[in-house]
Amino acid sequence: MAKIRLGILGGGEDSLIGILHRVAANMFDQFEIIGGVFDIQHEKSLKFGEKLKLDPARVYKDLDDLIAKEKSLPQVERLQAVSVLTPNFLHFPMAKKLLENGFNVICEKPLTTTYEEAKILNEIQQKSNSVFAVTYTYTGYPMIRQMKTMIENGDIGKIQKVDIQYYQGWINPLIHDKDKRSATWRLDPEKSGISCCIGDIGTHAFNMAEYVTGMKVENILADLNYLYEDNPMDIDGTVLLRFGGNVKGVLRASQIATGEENNFTVQVYGDKGGLKWQQENPNNLVLLKEDRPLQVLKPGHGYLSEFSLEGTKLPPGHPEGIFDSMGNIYYGVAMAINENEKYKGAYPKLNDGLRGMNFIEKTVASHKNGNVWIKIED
Amino acid sequence: MAKIRLGILGGGEDSLIGILHRVAANMFDQFEIIGGVFDIQHEKSLKFGEKLKLDPARVYKDLDDLIAKEKSLPQVERLQAVSVLTPNFLHFPMAKKLLENGFNVICEKPLTTTYEEAKILNEIQQKSNSVFAVTYTYTGYPMIRQMKTMIENGDIGKIQKVDIQYYQGWINPLIHDKDKRSATWRLDPEKSGISCCIGDIGTHAFNMAEYVTGMKVENILADLNYLYEDNPMDIDGTVLLRFGGNVKGVLRASQIATGEENNFTVQVYGDKGGLKWQQENPNNLVLLKEDRPLQVLKPGHGYLSEFSLEGTKLPPGHPEGIFDSMGNIYYGVAMAINENEKYKGAYPKLNDGLRGMNFIEKTVASHKNGNVWIKIED
Amino acid sequence: MAKIRLGILGGGEDSLIGILHRVAANMFDQFEIIGGVFDIQHEKSLKFGEKLKLDPARVYKDLDDLIAKEKSLPQVERLQAVSVLTPNFLHFPMAKKLLENGFNVICEKPLTTTYEEAKILNEIQQKSNSVFAVTYTYTGYPMIRQMKTMIENGDIGKIQKVDIQYYQGWINPLIHDKDKRSATWRLDPEKSGISCCIGDIGTHAFNMAEYVTGMKVENILADLNYLYEDNPMDIDGTVLLRFGGNVKGVLRASQIATGEENNFTVQVYGDKGGLKWQQENPNNLVLLKEDRPLQVLKPGHGYLSEFSLEGTKLPPGHPEGIFDSMGNIYYGVAMAINENEKYKGAYPKLNDGLRGMNFIEKTVASHKNGNVWIKIED
Amino acid sequence: MAKIRLGILGGGEDSLIGILHRVAANMFDQFEIIGGVFDIQHEKSLKFGEKLKLDPARVYKDLDDLIAKEKSLPQVERLQAVSVLTPNFLHFPMAKKLLENGFNVICEKPLTTTYEEAKILNEIQQKSNSVFAVTYTYTGYPMIRQMKTMIENGDIGKIQKVDIQYYQGWINPLIHDKDKRSATWRLDPEKSGISCCIGDIGTHAFNMAEYVTGMKVENILADLNYLYEDNPMDIDGTVLLRFGGNVKGVLRASQIATGEENNFTVQVYGDKGGLKWQQENPNNLVLLKEDRPLQVLKPGHGYLSEFSLEGTKLPPGHPEGIFDSMGNIYYGVAMAINENEKYKGAYPKLNDGLRGMNFIEKTVASHKNGNVWIKIED
Repeated sequence: MAKIRLGILGGGEDSLIGILHRVAANMFDQFEIIGGVFDIQHEKSLKFGEKLKLDPARVYKDLDDLIAKEKSLPQVERLQAVSVLTPNFLHFPMAKKLLENGFNVICEKPLTTTYEEAKILNEIQQKSNSVFAVTYTYTGYPMIRQMKTMIENGDIGKIQKVDIQYYQGWINPLIHDKDKRSATWRLDPEKSGISCCIGDIGTHAFNMAEYVTGMKVENILADLNYLYEDNPMDIDGTVLLRFGGNVKGVLRASQIATGEENNFTVQVYGDKGGLKWQQENPNNLVLLKEDRPLQVLKPGHGYLSEFSLEGTKLPPGHPEGIFDSMGNIYYGVAMAINENEKYKGAYPKLNDGLRGMNFIEKTVASHKNGNVWIKIED
Repeated sequence: MAKIRLGILGGGEDSLIGILHRVAANMFDQFEIIGGVFDIQHEKSLKFGEKLKLDPARVYKDLDDLIAKEKSLPQVERLQAVSVLTPNFLHFPMAKKLLENGFNVICEKPLTTTYEEAKILNEIQQKSNSVFAVTYTYTGYPMIRQMKTMIENGDIGKIQKVDIQYYQGWINPLIHDKDKRSATWRLDPEKSGISCCIGDIGTHAFNMAEYVTGMKVENILADLNYLYEDNPMDIDGTVLLRFGGNVKGVLRASQIATGEENNFTVQVYGDKGGLKWQQENPNNLVLLKEDRPLQVLKPGHGYLSEFSLEGTKLPPGHPEGIFDSMGNIYYGVAMAINENEKYKGAYPKLNDGLRGMNFIEKTVASHKNGNVWIKIED
Repeated sequence: MAKIRLGILGGGEDSLIGILHRVAANMFDQFEIIGGVFDIQHEKSLKFGEKLKLDPARVYKDLDDLIAKEKSLPQVERLQAVSVLTPNFLHFPMAKKLLENGFNVICEKPLTTTYEEAKILNEIQQKSNSVFAVTYTYTGYPMIRQMKTMIENGDIGKIQKVDIQYYQGWINPLIHDKDKRSATWRLDPEKSGISCCIGDIGTHAFNMAEYVTGMKVENILADLNYLYEDNPMDIDGTVLLRFGGNVKGVLRASQIATGEENNFTVQVYGDKGGLKWQQENPNNLVLLKEDRPLQVLKPGHGYLSEFSLEGTKLPPGHPEGIFDSMGNIYYGVAMAINENEKYKGAYPKLNDGLRGMNFIEKTVASHKNGNVWIKIED
Repeated sequence: MAKIRLGILGGGEDSLIGILHRVAANMFDQFEIIGGVFDIQHEKSLKFGEKLKLDPARVYKDLDDLIAKEKSLPQVERLQAVSVLTPNFLHFPMAKKLLENGFNVICEKPLTTTYEEAKILNEIQQKSNSVFAVTYTYTGYPMIRQMKTMIENGDIGKIQKVDIQYYQGWINPLIHDKDKRSATWRLDPEKSGISCCIGDIGTHAFNMAEYVTGMKVENILADLNYLYEDNPMDIDGTVLLRFGGNVKGVLRASQIATGEENNFTVQVYGDKGGLKWQQENPNNLVLLKEDRPLQVLKPGHGYLSEFSLEGTKLPPGHPEGIFDSMGNIYYGVAMAINENEKYKGAYPKLNDGLRGMNFIEKTVASHKNGNVWIKIED
């Protein structure tokens, strides 16, 4: 079975979301990135395709071009799925076209800029056979999967309190300067819809609240903060939540929590215990039970649910980020093979292994000779 | 420029080291995995190649077969680099053949099973043009790179104390049972050389000590622990270190630190400050200075060295492991596209995005109507 | 100058609040506990006074008795201050009488059971010369003092977000059982006023919000949770806060956050940085600044404010709780002197010191003889 | 039964060790500080006694004076115990005299300056009826008591690895300057014996290793660091330990771990689990077990040993340091009563309680009126 042929819209140059999607697509050997539209300027798009070592024929001028040409290819060559990584206001028209033309879609959040658009999309998909994913990335963490499973299994009993926080500080250096705030696309309703903070990160928090609890929010009461009269978009807010069965919760989101990076926390309390998770320390799931020591569950252990374990690829104690560390080493090697002088030092070399062997033998010798000092020659 | 053509020896089936190398190879869009020998049984190897969607003609019977056939291919198709992920005792013969036949080599640690073998390898490489990397994975972490750079820059002054710990507990359930310990390949000198604990993890610690400090260890004094008389391999040990200039250090490694996962810590103290890092929490680098608050440096910030920033692909606050979370979502989508029923639920769907849009609009409405409760229809 | 003569109302037997006040009163050598009313049963009160080694003549039947007799004593012997540690509903009548009779008062929170009572008390005090303290204990922490000072000094700029959490789980095992919840005095309006959760811990949070920021809350919007129809007292709640200048905040308090102990957190963000503190880890004050590493301020350092340093009695690195550790040792010694067999082991003995000296000498000898093994005789 | 009458030698003025002992002595209402010799200058000693509100007749010129006069008092008035808080070299002569004259002794560590002196003291005590405590303070922590009990109970099985670290950085700013290091009493063998680092903090670590494990160290191998040729005292060292039954361990101590405050850690691993504790975070005891989530035990819970619970005075979630926070408030009140203007603000006042009552009532009203905004008047 061949890998799934994937196209990408947006995510070119140094786009962080672009890197994230490409790495994720490669991670389980399931996708092959074939082409896409990486930039509105075709020139730039082609250049980026070259960097990805793609066939330039599959790097298109725009989405219409992509759809037309891909549909002319035999089915075994045609793109099967397309990731939409463009600015928010393009999600809707692009996802709509892709669905209407039979592609599977992976779309960044927020899904659209209005609820109305989202409902239209939903209707189209329900009549289609396409897979449609919205990348609420955080739901993929092994310990979030474990949290969801444990709540489902009743490990913390009936839920009685839900508390979600998503605090960032990135908009602080922009918001207090009139010129800067009017030049920020996130604060432009044309490009970002009716909400900045809630639209960007509040949705993650809302999705997570429903995802881990398996409950639906039925009523909300919100207090948002815009800070300046001329700023049309919220940059901070608190939302009181009422789930079914009168379960209460509170969702707090901010982009003016100065100095915060991506402080997303999830706390759920039931009548038999509590579960807590922090995105910045994603390998730890804290379980609180009355009259028992606090427990910290970590990825990869046999005591976890199958669902959690399926999302972990390494043994306990290796934070998931180890892929990045190894990735950096492979990059150093690639640079060396490509004779890019600058990077030559950035991977461990044979000589490092040589010293390692020397160390091992001398260590055993020191011990076996009665714990004596031994010289390690250079 | 085409991607680098990579072959892999070992790392088949569920091999964790295999997954780690494949993900790393893909991470910066620099390598393409072309073929290799994934198992000593060709049948299994072919099956694994199929899983990776490889051309079966590039999945070889053994290393000799690989070398012969690859060398018969035109240079633009031939494998450029080969990763050696086999058991320790095969590292030497395989790496040697690869070097002798002009391949670039990425080799797992420990490099060989004896220092003598390592020296032979070193001589061969020095006469060749090949790139040769030993995957001391942990040196790739952005905050280790930062630590190395800061020490180089004199941020903690002249080093006066080095403390490295590598504690695991995995051998505890095996070591106390005579049958189990005699059946463990890590404890078999034929397969693992003269040392288990020092050979496996002590080398990581030793390499790290020299890597971050930029100094060479000149003398060592060791005390190892074998626990049982019939056990030929150390499973725990402490090594006193003397670097040049009479700088002292201590390296502690254990595989019987019961319950420890991969507790690798690096502490370096100079006359102007100290730096501390823990592998299980790799995004935090702690800087200690007299008369100043403790500082925690985190990846991706502008205050870091260029070397560290080159190894980070995401903005601050996104632990490197986020790739894994997104990877799990992509996997769910792949399963859905491939109609594997079991996984259908494991990615956020269009409807999740729909609810998100609903939430955003209702939140803004609640706020704008004076902080009132608003119903969120299903 | 003599120590201040202190009386105590309530806090007898194993009352935790009683121990806390006595230790605190002794800590800076300023108070001497002279007498009081420790229990409504005089018998028990006298017995407790005996435990405190007090003159039985100063252990009174009730507050009226105390006032009458104390006022008959010459001024140099008379109680100067009285701590009120009784159940909430007694705070008001007792504090009122004490004020009216010229005593200084230290009163546990909540001050009274109604705002009306509190206002009466306030009026009386304003006409008196008495010192009147309400023990919002957490404001005494050195790092809270530091937080307050830094905010005052403008270290985080103009405040734009205040977030206070006070989560406990203690009422969870009581609330779901009808008999238990109706028998809990905290849930009885007669004894506890109109609020349980907000009255008990929400007030701490509210006081802290105003204390550290130096701002006043001007408007609030609250959503409380009672969980059961027959429960008259809130046990959980979220309160939206508006401070002067339209600064927004949110206060969350819960007694059904199952498994939480005393999870009181304070987060304040300004346009130049953020400050965070957690009561369960009170020695760490986290300072967030854009483009700078996260900083952790700890007690006792020269970089702290004078106000913070005045509240610290030990050098950096000694968590304040070290008093307790030493206290336990003194207790063991007391038990030994009093020949209470049970405790004889619970303090380090001369022989432990002897072994210590042996260890030091042997360690230096091992080193000086060239790092050799030396036996430590028993 | 009267409180135990306690005298103190040393610990005057701002001596931190003096404060620590006085607070500890008062903590459980068992001791009453009566007198002592607080300074070699009688003048200063008297002044300090005045600060403690002591009878000047019990503040003596020197130890001989103290012994002579105290012995002339009737037994019911005479000091029963004396704490020795003087510089190290005075511990031996003072403790010896006190023992010879029938006093109970509480002595700071290290017990003496030589092993020989310690043995003499030991002999005298064995013939006497005196209680003699050496204040290895850290053994009093509730979670250390729990650790000891759990090891005794076999909770982590047979011990196979002991790892103790005691890292400080305080000597770094002194050691690199010849004048400073020759002027430091800790580095003067006349005053401090043969060892600085091992003598001061290595002994704590050694005592702790034996205390929590219940095992004796039988052999040691040490490597110390003096850094400069003219420095006669170690300021850093690693000691390999062999306990009975060939159990191995390692003890690391440093005073040049620049920036470290009081980083004392204890890790013990057995064949059924591991236990870890850090002095700077003394409320957390980490239990590691194979195939089970990491557990964090905290003070005051019913799941703890009786021995641990006896050392805790507050409910879970209140870090032991809360005494200090309350102590600071009492101090503020004392200053106010004594009309020391400077401190008037440093305790919560009646008005703070008044606002709290206002807050509670308005919060309940906001909720009951349908979650509406309510003004909080000043």
